Amino acid sequence: MFNNNIWSFGNSAVNAPYGWSQNKRTGRREKSTNSEPTAKSEAPCEALKNIDSGVVLCDMSDGEIIDLLAEGKIMHYELEKLLGIENSDRAVKLRRMHFAANTPISAEAIEQLPHEHYDFSQVTGVCCENVIGYMPIPVGVAGPLLLDGKTFMVPMATVEGALVASTTRGFKALARSKSGQGVTSILLSDGMTRGPAVQMPNAKRAGALKQWIEDPVNFAKIEKEFNGTSRFARLQEIKIGVAGRKVFLRFKCKTGDAMGMNMISKATDKALKLLLVEFKDMELVSLSGNYCTDKKPSAMNWLEGRGKSVVCDAVIPSDVVKKVLKTNVDKLVALNINKNLVGSAMSGSVGGFNAHASNMVTAVFLATGQDAAQNVESSNCMTLMEKTADGDLYMSVTMPSIEVGTIGGGTHLHAQKACLSMLGVSGTQEKNPGANAQQLARIVAATVMAGELSLMSALAEDTLVSDHMKHNRAKTPAPPTL
Amino acid sequence: MFNNNIWSFGNSAVNAPYGWSQNKRTGRREKSTNSEPTAKSEAPCEALKNIDSGVVLCDMSDGEIIDLLAEGKIMHYELEKLLGIENSDRAVKLRRMHFAANTPISAEAIEQLPHEHYDFSQVTGVCCENVIGYMPIPVGVAGPLLLDGKTFMVPMATVEGALVASTTRGFKALARSKSGQGVTSILLSDGMTRGPAVQMPNAKRAGALKQWIEDPVNFAKIEKEFNGTSRFARLQEIKIGVAGRKVFLRFKCKTGDAMGMNMISKATDKALKLLLVEFKDMELVSLSGNYCTDKKPSAMNWLEGRGKSVVCDAVIPSDVVKKVLKTNVDKLVALNINKNLVGSAMSGSVGGFNAHASNMVTAVFLATGQDAAQNVESSNCMTLMEKTADGDLYMSVTMPSIEVGTIGGGTHLHAQKACLSMLGVSGTQEKNPGANAQQLARIVAATVMAGELSLMSALAEDTLVSDHMKHNRAKTPAPPTL
Amino acid sequence: MFNNNIWSFGNSAVNAPYGWSQNKRTGRREKSTNSEPTAKSEAPCEALKNIDSGVVLCDMSDGEIIDLLAEGKIMHYELEKLLGIENSDRAVKLRRMHFAANTPISAEAIEQLPHEHYDFSQVTGVCCENVIGYMPIPVGVAGPLLLDGKTFMVPMATVEGALVASTTRGFKALARSKSGQGVTSILLSDGMTRGPAVQMPNAKRAGALKQWIEDPVNFAKIEKEFNGTSRFARLQEIKIGVAGRKVFLRFKCKTGDAMGMNMISKATDKALKLLLVEFKDMELVSLSGNYCTDKKPSAMNWLEGRGKSVVCDAVIPSDVVKKVLKTNVDKLVALNINKNLVGSAMSGSVGGFNAHASNMVTAVFLATGQDAAQNVESSNCMTLMEKTADGDLYMSVTMPSIEVGTIGGGTHLHAQKACLSMLGVSGTQEKNPGANAQQLARIVAATVMAGELSLMSALAEDTLVSDHMKHNRAKTPAPPTL
Amino acid sequence: MFNNNIWSFGNSAVNAPYGWSQNKRTGRREKSTNSEPTAKSEAPCEALKNIDSGVVLCDMSDGEIIDLLAEGKIMHYELEKLLGIENSDRAVKLRRMHFAANTPISAEAIEQLPHEHYDFSQVTGVCCENVIGYMPIPVGVAGPLLLDGKTFMVPMATVEGALVASTTRGFKALARSKSGQGVTSILLSDGMTRGPAVQMPNAKRAGALKQWIEDPVNFAKIEKEFNGTSRFARLQEIKIGVAGRKVFLRFKCKTGDAMGMNMISKATDKALKLLLVEFKDMELVSLSGNYCTDKKPSAMNWLEGRGKSVVCDAVIPSDVVKKVLKTNVDKLVALNINKNLVGSAMSGSVGGFNAHASNMVTAVFLATGQDAAQNVESSNCMTLMEKTADGDLYMSVTMPSIEVGTIGGGTHLHAQKACLSMLGVSGTQEKNPGANAQQLARIVAATVMAGELSLMSALAEDTLVSDHMKHNRAKTPAPPTL
Repeated sequence: MFNNNIWSFGNSAVNAPYGWSQNKRTGRREKSTNSEPTAKSEAPCEALKNIDSGVVLCDMSDGEIIDLLAEGKIMHYELEKLLGIENSDRAVKLRRMHFAANTPISAEAIEQLPHEHYDFSQVTGVCCENVIGYMPIPVGVAGPLLLDGKTFMVPMATVEGALVASTTRGFKALARSKSGQGVTSILLSDGMTRGPAVQMPNAKRAGALKQWIEDPVNFAKIEKEFNGTSRFARLQEIKIGVAGRKVFLRFKCKTGDAMGMNMISKATDKALKLLLVEFKDMELVSLSGNYCTDKKPSAMNWLEGRGKSVVCDAVIPSDVVKKVLKTNVDKLVALNINKNLVGSAMSGSVGGFNAHASNMVTAVFLATGQDAAQNVESSNCMTLMEKTADGDLYMSVTMPSIEVGTIGGGTHLHAQKACLSMLGVSGTQEKNPGANAQQLARIVAATVMAGELSLMSALAEDTLVSDHMKHNRAKTPAPPTL
Repeated sequence: MFNNNIWSFGNSAVNAPYGWSQNKRTGRREKSTNSEPTAKSEAPCEALKNIDSGVVLCDMSDGEIIDLLAEGKIMHYELEKLLGIENSDRAVKLRRMHFAANTPISAEAIEQLPHEHYDFSQVTGVCCENVIGYMPIPVGVAGPLLLDGKTFMVPMATVEGALVASTTRGFKALARSKSGQGVTSILLSDGMTRGPAVQMPNAKRAGALKQWIEDPVNFAKIEKEFNGTSRFARLQEIKIGVAGRKVFLRFKCKTGDAMGMNMISKATDKALKLLLVEFKDMELVSLSGNYCTDKKPSAMNWLEGRGKSVVCDAVIPSDVVKKVLKTNVDKLVALNINKNLVGSAMSGSVGGFNAHASNMVTAVFLATGQDAAQNVESSNCMTLMEKTADGDLYMSVTMPSIEVGTIGGGTHLHAQKACLSMLGVSGTQEKNPGANAQQLARIVAATVMAGELSLMSALAEDTLVSDHMKHNRAKTPAPPTL
Repeated sequence: MFNNNIWSFGNSAVNAPYGWSQNKRTGRREKSTNSEPTAKSEAPCEALKNIDSGVVLCDMSDGEIIDLLAEGKIMHYELEKLLGIENSDRAVKLRRMHFAANTPISAEAIEQLPHEHYDFSQVTGVCCENVIGYMPIPVGVAGPLLLDGKTFMVPMATVEGALVASTTRGFKALARSKSGQGVTSILLSDGMTRGPAVQMPNAKRAGALKQWIEDPVNFAKIEKEFNGTSRFARLQEIKIGVAGRKVFLRFKCKTGDAMGMNMISKATDKALKLLLVEFKDMELVSLSGNYCTDKKPSAMNWLEGRGKSVVCDAVIPSDVVKKVLKTNVDKLVALNINKNLVGSAMSGSVGGFNAHASNMVTAVFLATGQDAAQNVESSNCMTLMEKTADGDLYMSVTMPSIEVGTIGGGTHLHAQKACLSMLGVSGTQEKNPGANAQQLARIVAATVMAGELSLMSALAEDTLVSDHMKHNRAKTPAPPTL
Repeated sequence: MFNNNIWSFGNSAVNAPYGWSQNKRTGRREKSTNSEPTAKSEAPCEALKNIDSGVVLCDMSDGEIIDLLAEGKIMHYELEKLLGIENSDRAVKLRRMHFAANTPISAEAIEQLPHEHYDFSQVTGVCCENVIGYMPIPVGVAGPLLLDGKTFMVPMATVEGALVASTTRGFKALARSKSGQGVTSILLSDGMTRGPAVQMPNAKRAGALKQWIEDPVNFAKIEKEFNGTSRFARLQEIKIGVAGRKVFLRFKCKTGDAMGMNMISKATDKALKLLLVEFKDMELVSLSGNYCTDKKPSAMNWLEGRGKSVVCDAVIPSDVVKKVLKTNVDKLVALNINKNLVGSAMSGSVGGFNAHASNMVTAVFLATGQDAAQNVESSNCMTLMEKTADGDLYMSVTMPSIEVGTIGGGTHLHAQKACLSMLGVSGTQEKNPGANAQQLARIVAATVMAGELSLMSALAEDTLVSDHMKHNRAKTPAPPTL
């Protein structure tokens, strides 16, 4: 079971609310045996000790409970606990009433936020707190995507008009690739990372720590502790950065079909405890020292990868470029150099050598229960285009840090799970753990590729350009063609 | 009205689907007078010409329509057009049936994705295509936030457990700041950017273009064209980058309460047309040359800002740090240096000098109809902490590129609009256009600040650390205190 | 005259040694009227107070002085002061003897370092301290360079074999450019920068400072103070960065023919004093807040420029590429994309989109008395190559931050001045101050261009490649040609 | 012996001039057996075939030779070859005469550039071409440096006034560190890198190449080829980056006491040849694909290291800070955070978290025959300062990519070798190859540390600050102390 001090992670957390914690693999809630020290007692009666003893909240009317909330005798964030998780829907309803009555939130506003027809007990203690409803994001389907010879229909949750249509156009062109298999994908690496910071008395000791870890005998000791925390966590490497007396340790491990931040946090915690025993003069600075790097731009993820590192490519025949994408190979190749390489270089970008990878990443992430805040690094992408000897378009996208899972996080929620199922990657395959998450990463990359191809085609054929061409091209003395 | 070649933008688009385009300011759909060249005719009868003439799709039974779809006589993406926008809900239902019957998507999977109780006519032609339902994201409320003396309850849409609770804890501490006004925010800059790339025959001409634009007389000409495209677009500056014969022009302008990408694309297009007249040897490379920079990491946005540049700060009394955050000022200050400055520097980050800004940005963005793909740069943030002479905690977050709007994009959808209303920033104020979007940006930054404060406190007090302290501290010879 | 607290700058300094300071424009030493507080008195007699009064060091024999040094009665760093600047050569000789006798430096080693035939009085109090001789760096001449229709022979000081020969080959090809004028250069910007950091009590006041400075009325006040410090310093702009309560101010100004760091430091100091009067709650953090950015890699200089921003380009006929460079246009263009754009992007480079700009920059800097430590940013360069419609090679180098001067620094030394004279850019032209330094910057960029062209040609034709081609090309199925 | 196509490297070269190549380890020239294809015949008689047969150039008078040069019958770059290497001094003299007579270089200018008293035969065919003299750079000595308990006097070649004096002040403070051993240094890594780019037909094959290399059996094959090229080259690792179908291979190896670029280029070339045999569809793009990364800013070197990775630290007692550095610990610590961490972060720096490391690096590099163009990455440095529990100053510098050698390059020249000898690190120790270069790297880092400490102290005590303090401090309400 998950213990509390790990609960504190996933780069976001604080106190385990309500005293429940979640088994991140199954998505099931479990009562915490190791009670949260700062949390109030979970017993409804005790929580209601200011009120007449013997009263059980469930038996009260809505109005009575709202009164208690207004008087501060109970707190709105305790509602799920006090009413019982099976009454989460009622807790949501009561919170809405309370907020409308006693906070700056107007009744009119809250009325427009849907909450019915949704099972909030799925959410309680796992995905969100202080819940008042849900935000519906339209889901469209882009497809069919032909990827490594298989066909997928890709759900995308977005409010960005034309994104699904544009991606579909890209898929259409990619499905006609020369290989007959559509997009080809390769997986270069698969490993989540966590980069704690520790501190030694001085640089010499920092160096000693580094040397100790790099000794295979010691690495094996760490590995044993680390891997012992989960049947999926498999330590791959520890990248060590030293800054004066501070040491940054980037643990990298396989995490099965989970995105893996919680799994690796727990495992890293265990490994650090071993180090603290071996190095009495070592101090932990932070379980995350921004050396991971999670949810922030960094060269680290661009150079080293994080999560799944995927490359997709395809050769698109020139006539498909013409008919489906309404442009030509030369224009695309030139535009890609000028915009995605030169333009991004001019902007001082590290990892942003693409047109709009983040759009596709975010839409698929939202549809499939991923952590959308991780699109910061998951959208790292280099789009490349070349003209083949036959005059066709060779295109690739290189994405070193796609962070996805098919279990854990938001993937257990009904609707999110439904979209994973549409792609055939829900949950985990007992025989081949990790395969579903890897397949999802390939789909994300292929979807990015389609979106890139379509937008680049639109940009290459801006009517402004074509109008200009008609009028001015002839007069211009031999401009460079690339 | 929006014309088609602008439709192609917002960094995502391609063809205006269905022949409708959207008035981005009002969120209302308008029939495009300038029909999309690649789109098929919009008349249902013509679209049905393969079928018996006289038949109107609306009159058919679901089964009959599914048959037409299966036979390829009509395409699923035409359903809204063929049935009429007022029948969007039926179109969604039919598409689900069609996908379940005729694609790899299983009926079981699609069944779990909700679609009822939602008005899809709001979405059609504006926010999403090939729609099959919606993705419900739980919405929790963090608060109360005391910001510049005013109180807000902040809706956050997220599946990340503990995020809302943690942010609330941060708000609690910030509300007790020394000023009595909670968090103080300042707005340093407000301007959306678009960075097209153009090409001259050689560097000399590229230099001439730069010089021409920098001449105030010419700048005024450009400004006139630019501002003429909208009553909100107000050109502020054009940053010019030259790379050989290529010229990158970063237009920056106020965009009222809209996030502004569409507005500025249209205005930039107009400005470029003027330049094409003045410079006959200029070629447009791309309306977006990645010099904007949209949805990609870049030093550009970090150094120059994009959207709203906001700084928030507060002095949190040491006893509040102790009681609410369960840690102390020295630990927080040291951790912030080691993790958010040194750690991020060690990872080669540009703009990622924070713990998890992206979490809060994404959750508020999703709740309020923002473009979540823009969190890549909107999450740029430097968190700083210092100890004051009185021993209290001085804390600030600096966020140079928060891209938000309260009109346009997904902000017109009922639920999203509801969350904007909860914050009192829905739509635009006639007397003070731009004020709502600016207020929203301040709220985003303050929410980030709360999340940063709470997570940093949790990290500073990792039980691992405290256990270690008890056992080892005494033996360690005078370690540096910072 | 230069006062002492400015002396402390140029990003290197500390105490003005010996009590002399230098008029940086003329390179002449001047006795400091504002004596260095930490320096000992300059009077030889007082310095010798431990010795018999009445003794003057000049009258002593070498052996006697060495004895005094060995006994610690005088310090070796005082020798120039005690003997008089006109006896600098003797001071150098004595220091060598002293070091050989009394430090780990062996007599054999020091013997091999030349010191004769050099006028060290030029150096004393200006360029170097504790002098024991000079380091001879071989100077070769690359050329002729045809630049904007004029011919130059470019001196390069280097120990890197083949660099001069390779650059000469590049010049040979460039001289045959289609324009008939060789390389064309343009100057996009000319301004040195200094970026102090100041601190306000909070963000609100930081914002107020920013707003105050941006008010044209106030800017004019600052400008007046700033420009009043020198007849060359002309304030162009102040870029303001805010991080919480800290404010970074990047002053940019013209500096005539000086590289300008000292000039701008002095002027910035004056401007800051004005601000300190206006803002009583402002604290100076540092006259240099690394926002300049001097001698460090940064996106700042890449995006904003520093010193001279120069672009050079040329069209090299395809037959010249063949005959002089022994390669062809297609290979060069492809190599440039793969190495200088993709390769540098893969390495996470900001500003390093070139093959070896630093080689040429450093060699010309060393030959012309520039500050070689500034090659860190002066070498920022993007090399671009394209094939023209006629099949020729269009090439450009874009260098935004070349920091050079023709007065001040090491430019007054005989040999360094000689090399400046060879280029016709020694000193300043009264009628056109700044023109010499700008011309030098253009020459640096053109020399970089030649070096880039030649090395890229060598790389494109690696025999490894050609051998491989012969054996494998035919068998490979239609590879992309780019 | 070195063959020609390797000669072409060191990131600078082209054709081996004169037909000689250099044994980089010994610095001795050797006649190339593999004659340069593009070079003219080396035989003086043949070169003089336009002239009367039988004439030998050596027998001619200066005037006669100048005439031949003026008439173009012989070329100035052939002089050393035609006259014989032993007459290099005469060749230099003749070239000066020729340039003064026949090029834009004036006689007056060339006259001021020294050339006498120098043995140019050392330079010919090794270090420089088209030689006309040498550039004398003043050499000062900073010291004594107490490093790991040993004392060094550090020669620095510079024209930057106060640099040597300032560094000496830093050394003075560091010598009084608490450990009694002065500065402590640790070496984290030692390995030069070369990052060629190759190209496969598609991403799948790129992935196959990566996988093949990562197989230990195959790695051993590569290692054998690689190591076989030199008795020092010892392959450590190959970091593999994939971008679409392009593969970047960063070979890292020990290079004994050589800086190692030539050694590793030769070894990499051999390894690539093996790969070309194994992968018939592989194409070499470039022996250097900018993935090395040499002489360019990059996150690669900052994160991965290049050459020697060194950390230095020391605890400086607070009274030493006061007496020697004239400031206090709190000011230094605060300044370091604000300038070297926050300021550099605000400038978008990767690797430039220091005040002026490049100054010290460049001066020591120039004094010891290093490649000064490599200071771009060798100056990567993070300076950290903390206050210890005892109130003293803990300081460190972290420099991951110091590229130095004590053999090869310019280290064999008399004066440069002399400076290496002063440090006790000239040449190589047979028993411990690599130790000298490592020691030099430690000295470079310690010298940087001293320069950092001294300049930071000067900045912390700017009189501007102190004046301001006197007048304003009292009135300011409790500002943050850090």
